Amino acid sequence: MPEQPELTIQGWGPGGSRVATVREGLDGDEGSLELDTDPDLAGALPRAARRHLSRELGWTPRSTPPVRVSEIRIAPSRLPGDVRAAMAALLGEENVATDRESRLRRTGGKSYLDLLRRREGDVSDAPDAVVSPGDTDETAALLALCAERGVVVVPFGGGTSVVGGLSGIDPDDRPAVALDLGRMASVRDLDVPSSLVTVGPGMRGPALEEALARVGLTLGHLPQSWEFATLGGYAATRSAGQASTGIGRFDELVAGLTLATPTGVLELGHPPASAAGPDLLGLALGSEGALGVITELRLRVRPKPRTATYEGWSFRSWAAGLAGLQRLARHDLLPDVVRLSDPDETRANLLMAGGTGARVLRGSLRARGHGQGCLLVVGWEGLPTLVRARRRAAASALREGGAVRVGRKVGESWRRHRFDAPYLRDRLLDSGLLVETLETAATWTALPVVYDAVRSALARSLGRDGRPPLVMSHVSHGYPTGASLYVTVLADRDDDLPIQQWLAAKREATDALLAAGGTLTHHHAVGADHRPWLEREIGPLGVEVLRAVKQRLDPTGICNPGVLLPD
Amino acid sequence: MPEQPELTIQGWGPGGSRVATVREGLDGDEGSLELDTDPDLAGALPRAARRHLSRELGWTPRSTPPVRVSEIRIAPSRLPGDVRAAMAALLGEENVATDRESRLRRTGGKSYLDLLRRREGDVSDAPDAVVSPGDTDETAALLALCAERGVVVVPFGGGTSVVGGLSGIDPDDRPAVALDLGRMASVRDLDVPSSLVTVGPGMRGPALEEALARVGLTLGHLPQSWEFATLGGYAATRSAGQASTGIGRFDELVAGLTLATPTGVLELGHPPASAAGPDLLGLALGSEGALGVITELRLRVRPKPRTATYEGWSFRSWAAGLAGLQRLARHDLLPDVVRLSDPDETRANLLMAGGTGARVLRGSLRARGHGQGCLLVVGWEGLPTLVRARRRAAASALREGGAVRVGRKVGESWRRHRFDAPYLRDRLLDSGLLVETLETAATWTALPVVYDAVRSALARSLGRDGRPPLVMSHVSHGYPTGASLYVTVLADRDDDLPIQQWLAAKREATDALLAAGGTLTHHHAVGADHRPWLEREIGPLGVEVLRAVKQRLDPTGICNPGVLLPD
Repeated sequence: MPEQPELTIQGWGPGGSRVATVREGLDGDEGSLELDTDPDLAGALPRAARRHLSRELGWTPRSTPPVRVSEIRIAPSRLPGDVRAAMAALLGEENVATDRESRLRRTGGKSYLDLLRRREGDVSDAPDAVVSPGDTDETAALLALCAERGVVVVPFGGGTSVVGGLSGIDPDDRPAVALDLGRMASVRDLDVPSSLVTVGPGMRGPALEEALARVGLTLGHLPQSWEFATLGGYAATRSAGQASTGIGRFDELVAGLTLATPTGVLELGHPPASAAGPDLLGLALGSEGALGVITELRLRVRPKPRTATYEGWSFRSWAAGLAGLQRLARHDLLPDVVRLSDPDETRANLLMAGGTGARVLRGSLRARGHGQGCLLVVGWEGLPTLVRARRRAAASALREGGAVRVGRKVGESWRRHRFDAPYLRDRLLDSGLLVETLETAATWTALPVVYDAVRSALARSLGRDGRPPLVMSHVSHGYPTGASLYVTVLADRDDDLPIQQWLAAKREATDALLAAGGTLTHHHAVGADHRPWLEREIGPLGVEVLRAVKQRLDPTGICNPGVLLPD
Repeated sequence: MPEQPELTIQGWGPGGSRVATVREGLDGDEGSLELDTDPDLAGALPRAARRHLSRELGWTPRSTPPVRVSEIRIAPSRLPGDVRAAMAALLGEENVATDRESRLRRTGGKSYLDLLRRREGDVSDAPDAVVSPGDTDETAALLALCAERGVVVVPFGGGTSVVGGLSGIDPDDRPAVALDLGRMASVRDLDVPSSLVTVGPGMRGPALEEALARVGLTLGHLPQSWEFATLGGYAATRSAGQASTGIGRFDELVAGLTLATPTGVLELGHPPASAAGPDLLGLALGSEGALGVITELRLRVRPKPRTATYEGWSFRSWAAGLAGLQRLARHDLLPDVVRLSDPDETRANLLMAGGTGARVLRGSLRARGHGQGCLLVVGWEGLPTLVRARRRAAASALREGGAVRVGRKVGESWRRHRFDAPYLRDRLLDSGLLVETLETAATWTALPVVYDAVRSALARSLGRDGRPPLVMSHVSHGYPTGASLYVTVLADRDDDLPIQQWLAAKREATDALLAAGGTLTHHHAVGADHRPWLEREIGPLGVEVLRAVKQRLDPTGICNPGVLLPD
């Protein structure tokens, strides 16, 4: 099993070691890691991009480094000694840790707010201990113990949440433990004829892909957090991956799972399909640790694709791009990977790419009237004959919609850099920028309205001296009925009140996207950050239904009380 | 809107009028209705098939007609006068019916047990009244009234349940009303760019397809009950249709719905996708009226396929057939319609077909060593270029698996007769036969074991004088991880204790298929008939979770208390 490196405490990337081996394992790519190896902003951003940002945002690059990890002060553990002893008796002494390093590494996730706090040295949300059960029974016993003794449990997989999913907030301020899934991180069974693999929840994508590759199989779920996120985390947050348009959201890859709760164990899901009552598996997916802990997953795998083709297309405008995708969608012609950047993101990507190739491409697009256009990256994977037929049919539909093909280099470049953004973010945070993302989804009819609403709200909230923030958007997943919208925002950071600055912007953007018909989140989950809006999406009675389920499974409310359900 | 004919009280088919117009609307077929127009068994079964059945089952064809409908005695309505008046004040006098005909027509469903009872003149499960709300608000108000006054509510769509879904059983023996959905049966909105149609739950497939065809769209959900079942019923029971392998189960076609409950209204589902907590839409799907009443549905539609090709293939054996399908499944090469008959069903189908064509086919299959073989019907629908590529790739995989193509006639014949079986059943019931179906699903690995287990159990339970029943099976839906198994059983009926005869067989078969790893039901739902086994599928804690949800939405237990949850 390949090493599963832990994330650094204050940002993205493995603590100390290079991640190159893992990433090269996926595509056999070379030369994709330039952002990791150059420590300063000048290396992270081409000069043109830096100039562009300064000009657009009124931002002066400045040094805003994090405090040293060694200077971070952590409060003493509040876990009562007898509880600690009972846990050690249950799990073994070596699986109950209260040392500084263990607790720091399981403090919060990787949202902009998390990073701001960690960079300032604030670890007030650190768990009081880190406990590591080895199987379902130990997890269930641990949860029962915690329920009895009033200890909050926050499941910890890769620690990659970007919505405050690991905040550990508890209205009763009880001691809290991070339940680390690292000991349940292996392949437990492989049923090749049924295309099913059974795994522990702490396993990560790279390790699973390596195991599957040996028998010619793949899971294929590739979110941006792929290097660090765990399979259990994908299930708990209803993750989507970069190829989800083709192979489905993570929800659709889960054929079954085991959920340990304080009141017992649920075995859910019956592949291939059942009509025996409401779907309880769907209640565990997206439960974010608030109903219990996922201790096993049965996942749908598939043969490794025999061919994979990535290419770029360009549309003259955002409206034309959306119309083009919608046309593909309704005829079931969507590629496996689809990513349509709006004009702002397209321009930024071309600037970021730097080099001669990008300059030539910019010139060529301008010459064709696509100077303010939108780049579309598509990826096709599978059996060569089918990929050929699908690509041909889609190409003809795209051309009818006014798109022009810009070749494979754009597609391959995207693919090489598909996991880079969070690394780059750390560099930008070092230089006085606000950098955060948000995402939603909407029907094809509502999507343009949602897009405008989010941009306006962010501009209103983050504009300074008449200069709006840089808001870059793309469609990242397509469906017959609509698409997701992923938004990256850069602004000059308010060095005095950076957290408040973002909270205000997030509030305005979320209100706006919900009012326009967007979903609260397409694939980042609720966490702590979206809790105030959950009722707007599922209604007060929907919240009450979830509460009734939680009350049955977790009557003392020890399971990740800071997420999902509003106070 | 086309007429939505009601089912006859004691069997299948419209009460009095021919259904031909509806069925011809779908395929433009001719000559598919011979079974409707000939009243006697000789017309329903070719001579060879009749001889075959007599010989195999030790069955002597005999006349076992139902009692006349006019002779059926129904108990007086128990609905208290003041409750009736309150309902009439809410819905209008014309929408609260207590007359004999209205109540008889909403008594039970169409399982073998239902038909036995109705044919014997037993309507002890008749509702005390039939109420017809016109919208969500009226439905919610009605449910609140019923909760207050202790009146059980059984939603009634097409009345096609085959698992006792409309039994109306109530442990407290309170008065019961059938909540007829017939007034909520129209298209309410059509969002063409988003491929979404909003409909009332009482609408049926033929009416919706007619409305969609006008704008070049289709829903494409075609279960055997298509002529009579309602869209709300599909959602409430997690239906699958004959093309579900291609377009997905009904679950996957529901983008959203409104559920009126005694404690309020839930608006569920956010197309195209959301990660905001557990999937509450999935709790309403398959809720079988036990949580409330579905009053609106938002469904995913698609362009009418530009081409449709149906054809037959033959495998030398059941094992080879399953292996062939599994190979298609794992490479995502499954056709849109897939139906693999086992040797018993294949032989019966060829006998039933009669005529020269079938004789020639039988001879040709014998000559190729497929005399005990399995017929596979496949259907491809969609864009011609893609259908061509998929068919070609699948054909090559099928040939590698030893299958031989037997041409389009077999496929087209299946398609012409796709809705015939329930009509034929009535004729067989008239002649002293037991005729019933059951269905399950299993992973590709478990499927052969489940198949053997079900056949053995039915043979054990229904065999007589050393002669086993005729058990005919087919795979009706394929998935990457497994497939469904649909079993039709014919036996000499025990004229003295026909209900007990089937209850014993059903019990043995269900115990066996669950022990072998099958699901309790693949697409018929739980109803009253599967309640005793629900806990075996979802576990005691799973049942408790459902109870907690029901308690929150329906605290007085008036919503279809006879189904889904065990006593």
